[in-house]
Amino acid sequence: MDEELGDLTESDFILPPIKYEYLDHTADVQLHAWGDSLKEAFEQCGMAMFAYMTEMAYVQIREVHTIEANADDMIGLLYHFLDELLFLFSAEPFLICKKLVITEFNTEEFRIVCKCYGEEFKIGTHPQGTEVKAITYSAMQIIDEPKDHKFEVFVIIDI
Amino acid sequence: MDEELGDLTESDFILPPIKYEYLDHTADVQLHAWGDSLKEAFEQCGMAMFAYMTEMAYVQIREVHTIEANADDMIGLLYHFLDELLFLFSAEPFLICKKLVITEFNTEEFRIVCKCYGEEFKIGTHPQGTEVKAITYSAMQIIDEPKDHKFEVFVIIDI
Repeated sequence: MDEELGDLTESDFILPPIKYEYLDHTADVQLHAWGDSLKEAFEQCGMAMFAYMTEMAYVQIREVHTIEANADDMIGLLYHFLDELLFLFSAEPFLICKKLVITEFNTEEFRIVCKCYGEEFKIGTHPQGTEVKAITYSAMQIIDEPKDHKFEVFVIIDI
Repeated sequence: MDEELGDLTESDFILPPIKYEYLDHTADVQLHAWGDSLKEAFEQCGMAMFAYMTEMAYVQIREVHTIEANADDMIGLLYHFLDELLFLFSAEPFLICKKLVITEFNTEEFRIVCKCYGEEFKIGTHPQGTEVKAITYSAMQIIDEPKDHKFEVFVIIDI
């Protein structure tokens, strides 16, 4: 199917006008977090999300807020836990969390209460990292294997 | 749910170790192309894809290759057309196309034959743009409305 350069005629070199554009760009990143317990893996996952949004070195602990999450199963609980955290950041108080401490981790009634330590996000003080648009259920995984001492979560977030 | 700073104790400021990481990142971009005919919109869509891969100003027309695409419907035809073009780039001759001319655009038997003008991609000569990993069927749209003189295509590519 190849043709030699000699076969190209003058008109072959005339270029067409541009009639295209590039539209909105979506992306995601997968968070992988672990701990000595599933509770710790959840806390770490939440902190991973916040660390993606800004440089954590610029964030100080000045306030503490409490969030609650409820669901019908563990996957749903992880989703709603992260979604509540994201809401803390997306609406007032626009909190960036540097530290999360889950005070109630009920894996039977699927309920989490969590203390969120951090400070209000302020442009100028805090570098803007990547905006997290949404938590997704896509390929979400919870590894809860106490025998092997394996407690891990995988969550894909839209950015 | 807010608590005052005064409620924070010394231990509240102790930070946990980091037990998380960020895993592979995927992204996509939507190509939107149009023309005075559906054939031209297809050609433009193919050129949009190549223009995403490198700076077109550095590409010259030195060779011409011919590709063929066949499918069972128009959506499939658009997919296979772009996939054939991507293959031109991904395997020998590693062709970057600056200009595409569809010489057969059969919308009844769903067949395209296309002349692809460009040159072999060479690192050093051509800036590396974004790698296109795959064409997708996701939200693919073909607008073919001769009455309103509207000929457009929308294609999401994985990058």
